[in-house]
Amino acid sequence: MAVDPNLAQRLLDGDRRALARAISLVENDDPAGWALVREIYPHTGRATIVGVTGAPGAGKSTLIGQLVRNRRAAQRTVAVLSIDPSSPFTHGALLGDRIRLSEHFLDRGVFIRSMANRGALGGLAEASLQAALLMDAAGRDDVFLETVGVGQAEVDIIDHADSVLLVLMPGGGDSVQALKAGIMEIPDIIVVNKADHPLTQTMVREIRGVLSLAPQGPWKVPILQTEAVEGRGVDEVVQKLVEHRAHIEQQGTLSARRRRNLRSEVLAIAAGRLRRRLEHRLAQDERFERVIDDVVARRMDPASAASALLEDAPGDRPPQ
Amino acid sequence: MAVDPNLAQRLLDGDRRALARAISLVENDDPAGWALVREIYPHTGRATIVGVTGAPGAGKSTLIGQLVRNRRAAQRTVAVLSIDPSSPFTHGALLGDRIRLSEHFLDRGVFIRSMANRGALGGLAEASLQAALLMDAAGRDDVFLETVGVGQAEVDIIDHADSVLLVLMPGGGDSVQALKAGIMEIPDIIVVNKADHPLTQTMVREIRGVLSLAPQGPWKVPILQTEAVEGRGVDEVVQKLVEHRAHIEQQGTLSARRRRNLRSEVLAIAAGRLRRRLEHRLAQDERFERVIDDVVARRMDPASAASALLEDAPGDRPPQ
Repeated sequence: MAVDPNLAQRLLDGDRRALARAISLVENDDPAGWALVREIYPHTGRATIVGVTGAPGAGKSTLIGQLVRNRRAAQRTVAVLSIDPSSPFTHGALLGDRIRLSEHFLDRGVFIRSMANRGALGGLAEASLQAALLMDAAGRDDVFLETVGVGQAEVDIIDHADSVLLVLMPGGGDSVQALKAGIMEIPDIIVVNKADHPLTQTMVREIRGVLSLAPQGPWKVPILQTEAVEGRGVDEVVQKLVEHRAHIEQQGTLSARRRRNLRSEVLAIAAGRLRRRLEHRLAQDERFERVIDDVVARRMDPASAASALLEDAPGDRPPQ
Repeated sequence: MAVDPNLAQRLLDGDRRALARAISLVENDDPAGWALVREIYPHTGRATIVGVTGAPGAGKSTLIGQLVRNRRAAQRTVAVLSIDPSSPFTHGALLGDRIRLSEHFLDRGVFIRSMANRGALGGLAEASLQAALLMDAAGRDDVFLETVGVGQAEVDIIDHADSVLLVLMPGGGDSVQALKAGIMEIPDIIVVNKADHPLTQTMVREIRGVLSLAPQGPWKVPILQTEAVEGRGVDEVVQKLVEHRAHIEQQGTLSARRRRNLRSEVLAIAAGRLRRRLEHRLAQDERFERVIDDVVARRMDPASAASALLEDAPGDRPPQ
């Protein structure tokens, strides 16, 4: 399908359809999408990017819905990107969440999109960064990146956010344990949602215990309580997001953070390309299945097979 | 440090020190380690490899301790590899778990090792496969791979297991939600540990609901209840592990599974090498920081920067 030559300009003018089209190009790994990001990139860096993570069912979408309402009341334009790494057979379950954002579907100031394509260049994390850049260039004041899961992989996906918010629910003790064990990095803000639950105070105490053991930075991670369905506690979340943003700007960590994130992004895209090229080459290389046969028959070990496929001398190793 | 030229033979003879030394070589990414795996690889494929995953605190180590006791009573030799992807500051927390395996420390028939080195070639997943191969070649009948976390990343680490066992605890609802949302693949066996907890039956019902929605394969995933501290329910877990193993052997899925796992292993090692080489090259390339400067200053977008660093024409994309 031909790409509108004015797509970049329309996007920069804030045209919603142009933004939707641009994200589709990136999601489908279309070269026109990458060209577009190249063109609009100088106009990015202005939006406030907030990453929201947590286990499924914790109420992330509902909370984001309330944050959107709050930001709209403050006359700010908003974009939400929901990143869905779940397996194909359950897509229905997560897409159901999107319904919770439906009150905003008719508001031109709110742009909502989900992304589930794992096939994108360098993976979902890279495709979602590209989409966030497009939202930023389209003039959205606030960009929310939502990812679902409990682990470092989920935090990596939203690594290009300026502030990371973790949403927990009482009874969802696995996330607290994951924080405690250092499986998951400490976020900037912790929200215990569904705070009318009897186990809320127990959970808040546990989180406080975990935070007291973590290395103390200049930012004191707040533990907030919300009942997102009722809108309770949402103003405090917004307040802390604004404070965190001011904090990292003051400390000069915003630019340090963005540099670090962009650096790992560039590496991830480059490494993803190398991997894709390798997979493409092997898919056409009849030696590949023969080498795997040898590995399965225990005639050749996996590392030597990798060397053979990289056309190295066997036993070659990467430089330290 | 020089490597004993008889290390491979000593390892194949079942020498524990040789096994410990060999795993250290692999963990430290020493070329001698890779050479050793190459040498012993023809002697692998005999052990039963069981992956055990679940949130921290669910009682995995305690359950494995009981499984080890059971297997030892059946005159089988055992190795346990605990894979610890947590951040450096909490290592103490997870190493504490190891103490639960301490009753076996003096038993020569039990070999216990943990691995936390992220620096290994291709990452922790690949290093742990190499370690499992060494344990297999050293004649261990049963190899348990333990990984901590709640997500697909953790399942990937133990992807080379013949059977995958997920340990849940009542109140750890995040893991059930992750299964439900398809964030985590359905394991072969589910164990609800700490089953004396009042929330156990609620959790079992929830899991049953999740399984009823998942695509049905020929293996019916059992939901078992244990109190690992007391040893209750452990025999049933062993029984189901034996049944699962017999099932995949009968169905011919064991070899299909191993082929698939070895194939993705070879690809992961090769891709990891490409990435390491790239990082090594960039660390010595003064252009790298200049390119990142351009990205930070919004003069060049991340994908174009990746192209530039791969020495492609800008805008070059990998083949589809």
